[in-house]
Formats: sequence, structure tokens, C-alpha cells
Amino acid sequence: MYNVGVDIGGTNLAMGLVDEELNIVQRVSIPFPKAGGGPETAKQIWEKTNELLGKAGADIKDLESVGVVVPGSIDATGSIVVNAYNLGFHDEPLKERIEAYFPDTPVLLANDANGAALAEFYKGAFVGCNTAALLTLGTGVGGGLILGGKMFNGGMNNGVELGHMLLVSGGKYCTCGNNGCVEAYCSATALKQEGIKAMQADPDSMLNKRAGGKAERMNAKVVIDCAREGDEAAVKVFDEYVDYLGSAVACMINLLDCECVAIGGGVSAAGEFLFAPLRQNVHKKSFFENHGRVVPAVMGNDAGIIGAAMLKRDQDKKL
Amino acid sequence: MYNVGVDIGGTNLAMGLVDEELNIVQRVSIPFPKAGGGPETAKQIWEKTNELLGKAGADIKDLESVGVVVPGSIDATGSIVVNAYNLGFHDEPLKERIEAYFPDTPVLLANDANGAALAEFYKGAFVGCNTAALLTLGTGVGGGLILGGKMFNGGMNNGVELGHMLLVSGGKYCTCGNNGCVEAYCSATALKQEGIKAMQADPDSMLNKRAGGKAERMNAKVVIDCAREGDEAAVKVFDEYVDYLGSAVACMINLLDCECVAIGGGVSAAGEFLFAPLRQNVHKKSFFENHGRVVPAVMGNDAGIIGAAMLKRDQDKKL
Repeated sequence: MYNVGVDIGGTNLAMGLVDEELNIVQRVSIPFPKAGGGPETAKQIWEKTNELLGKAGADIKDLESVGVVVPGSIDATGSIVVNAYNLGFHDEPLKERIEAYFPDTPVLLANDANGAALAEFYKGAFVGCNTAALLTLGTGVGGGLILGGKMFNGGMNNGVELGHMLLVSGGKYCTCGNNGCVEAYCSATALKQEGIKAMQADPDSMLNKRAGGKAERMNAKVVIDCAREGDEAAVKVFDEYVDYLGSAVACMINLLDCECVAIGGGVSAAGEFLFAPLRQNVHKKSFFENHGRVVPAVMGNDAGIIGAAMLKRDQDKKL
Repeated sequence: MYNVGVDIGGTNLAMGLVDEELNIVQRVSIPFPKAGGGPETAKQIWEKTNELLGKAGADIKDLESVGVVVPGSIDATGSIVVNAYNLGFHDEPLKERIEAYFPDTPVLLANDANGAALAEFYKGAFVGCNTAALLTLGTGVGGGLILGGKMFNGGMNNGVELGHMLLVSGGKYCTCGNNGCVEAYCSATALKQEGIKAMQADPDSMLNKRAGGKAERMNAKVVIDCAREGDEAAVKVFDEYVDYLGSAVACMINLLDCECVAIGGGVSAAGEFLFAPLRQNVHKKSFFENHGRVVPAVMGNDAGIIGAAMLKRDQDKKL
């Protein structure tokens, strides 16, 4: 049997046919059909699923489920995309639309950050864990929770907003309208902004030279590269960033006693240059001597497809 | 059938015989036999259980379980009190000792803050909830979590340290050795300390007069009473306290999307004078428009007995 995993993003709609060993045996990526909205999206999912099955020498009877993840919020029934701004979906009954094409196959829908956590659980950093958290550091800070060996979408199905835990009560403004959220300190955007401040404060810094003195050329990677090469201004920005991120991770550990916290997103590409000091920082701040691991997320671009394909398995899981 | 709930504190050992409707039909409180340690504690639990059963016209065959909560950490097997400083218990095999007296009755052991959350779940503020958090504001900040309709003792059985979520990364020193924990801002002790600072800064304040100019006469209740009467210095301290507490509660809500957050401990006795502004503050900081309730804990002094008595029911619960 196969499961189809569909990862809908604002740019591309990526799909994979996933076998029982969680290999993506066939895959396809098409431009997200934004103009066609929900109806065209459902139709494309149907057509591409048949293509993928055909290429694998299988047919619809070999399909256990169609799982779909979207960058947005899903209603409590798991049927409607309440808001997915990048997709232009608002109160979009996507599940029903897809089900109309697959009358005999279960269709499941979830938020993509939750799906990514599920992918880590079934195939990545969380294998063997029952309690784990994924923090994804990008433009914002997203993530997902595994609790009791299952995907957790919040006690009221509102989702889990790891990026909006309070890290500095009353602190920096966050795009959510609140102040002091994890996202305001730990996103790649926050790292970039601190990089800009530092380059402007110190025109002689490597930071300023690498960005050619232009704020718009600063980004998280420039900060990390300069810090790695020992530029004083960059090291200071990076160390502060690690300290904030360490607080965010320690907060998760002290509250949930996670077996594993995985860090994904662009910033995590810094590798051990980030993880070595981060682990020290978390250990110092952890209430428990014997606390969970802090590791890079490993599923990368496949997280969406694998997570989506595992939604049925997650739903069926009895504890 | 009855369950016995045993609530061991540094001063008293309180026990209750709890019927199936969760009424405490018989109860007793004795001084905690500190000198006799674990062996004497187990013996007293046996003797008093028989007394309680006798008074209720019941015998040992009518006993479903003996549940015990202690102010300390329990090992992952749920058998050994690793550390309970107030009791002088360290690596104390309390469960075995009690089981030796009750060969045919299940004996269960838990942390008292977890037990208090369980009491709210079965009889108090959390009835009908599957996801809820209890924050207890006292000398420190403790609490417990209900996740998926069950008591949650952390993913690695280290417990849940709600008081040691990070509230102000790098902020005020906390007794745990870290900086910026919820406990350093939201405990009754923190409120008292801010009260002392404010009375010393403003000798004309009501705050200073009520405490007779003596730091040792300041406490959380004095701050709250003066704030209630409109003393400017006290209002400022209280408002800041509510703001920090609001951040702590919002953090729980944004992360876990709790259906209910209950606040217990001495400070919660302030009632609506605390809860009305707290709810406003939490609503402002909550990521979700439709978020969970913020209410006073209701189990008070019975939380330990009821929580302990429900440990068996919690363990048996299938989801």
C-alpha cells in the first residue's frame, strides 16, 4: 500500500508517493495553481496522484490515504483551511473538494508545521520519542509538537504556536502584535535585523563589508559566516542569538521535559557552529540535569510530503 | 469502593477516604512523622487507612487503591521519592514500603503539584477539559499539566516545571540558578520583594505604613490589600505583577492551546481583583482569538487528597 503526501506551498505544490517503509518512490512538483484556487488544486492532486500511481505500476486500490499539508490554520474538524495567506485560501473546504475525486480513499488535512514534526517522528530526529518539539527558524518561527507519540494540534485545535511563547515579557515587537515572542528574537529575520544594527554601528566590521554597507544585503547567513570567521561584531550578534534560542529551547524542556528538541529552517544549516554552543546554553538553563537532546531537524524539503503521508497513520494510532 | 488519598507535607500528613462520587467521607491529619522517615510514614498510612475504613463501616476489601502525593520528585518507575527536601526523603522507596502493608491493594505515588492538577481535572476547574494547566503561586511557582485527559509528568518523567519556563530571558535571578524564570516574577515571594522595593522607595506610601516600615512585615497580601485601596506605589507593583503573570499564562496558551488555565496558591485569593485584569492581559497576548479560560483553582486544601485518590483512575484511563 501507498500513501500520497501533498505539500502545498505558495510557490509549488509538491507530491510524493510514499511506500510502507516511508520511501518516496515517485514524486512530482508543479507550480501551485493559485488562480484556480481550491477546485483546481483538488483536480491537480487527483491527476498527479494517478500519474504517480501509474509510474509506480500501482492503481487507486493500492492507495491507503491522501494526506495534505498547508501553510495555514485548519478548522477543528480537520476539513477546512481557515486561513492560508500564501495560498489565498480562506474558509476553503479543501478536504471535501479532494474527497470528491477520491470517493473510497481517506483524505486528511493538516498544518505544514505539524506535518513536519510528524515527519521527524516517523522518519527523522524524533524516531523513538513520544514527546518532542520541532522549532523551525525562518522568516518567522514555526514548529510542531509530538505528545504521547501523536501529533498535537493544541488542546482546542487552534494549533501550537512555538514562535509565540513569551521569551522577554514586554520585549521586542512581534509581527503577531504582541511583544517579546520567541519569533521576535529567534527567527532568521531577527538575526538579520540585529546584523543590520551591528553593521551600521560598526562600519569597519566584516559584517558591514560583506553586506557592502547595504542593509538589504544583510541576512542570517552573512551574520553566521562572519561570526564563523571571528568578526567581533558578528560574534556578538550571534552569541546573543544563541542565548535567546537557548532560552526558548530550555523553556520547552522545562515545561514538557521533551526527549528531543529539533531545530530546522535556514539558520539550522549553520550546523555544529550553532548546535555546540546552543547545547551548552540549554544545559545551563535546563531545570533537569538529565534532559532531552537538542539536534538538527533532518527531514528538510521532504518533511511536508512525508508528514502529509503519515497523517493517516497518526490518526489511526492507538496509545 | 473507596480510594485513600494521602497528602504528605513537611508539617502534616493528611489523609482522606474518597468515595466513587469523589467525596471525602472520612479524613484525618497527623503531624508528619519526620523522625521515623519512610518506614514510620508507611506504618502510619496503614494504621490511619484502617481507622478511616472502620469509621466508614468498610474494610480493606472495599479499598481500590492507596494514592500518595509528596512535595518532591519521583523516579521514572513511580516507586521512589528521589528528593523531597521538606520531608527529608532522598531515594526513599516509599511505594514498596507502603505496599508491604497493603499486599492486595495498588499503591501509587506522584508529585503533589501533578496531583493537584489531577484533582482539578476530576473534581474542580478542569472538569470537561482534556488540555489544562495549573499554576500555583506561592513561595515558588509550581503546577501541573493535564494533556490528552491524563496527568502529564514530562516526556522523560522528570516532571513539568511551569515555574521555570523562561519569562524574561537573562532576567531576574531565580533560586533554580537560572535567570528570568516565571518563578522569579510570578511567585508570592516575587510580589513581596517588589513590595519591599516600592515601600523603601516611597516612605509615604500606604505600602510602607502597613508594613510599619519593616521589610519583614511585607508580603503578597499587603501589596494586594494596598493596591485594592488605591495606593499608587502598590498599584504599580501589582500591575507589573499581573503583566508578568499574564505573559506566563499566555505562553502556556500559545504553546499548548489549553482549554483552561487555573491559578492557585495564596495570591489567587485576591479573586476578581486579580483575575479581571489578568484575563484582559492574557487575551491581549494570546495568539488565538478564541482561547481557553483563565480561572481560579478551586480544590484548595483538598487538592492533595483528591488528586492522590485519583491516581489509580488516571493510570487506568484509556484514551
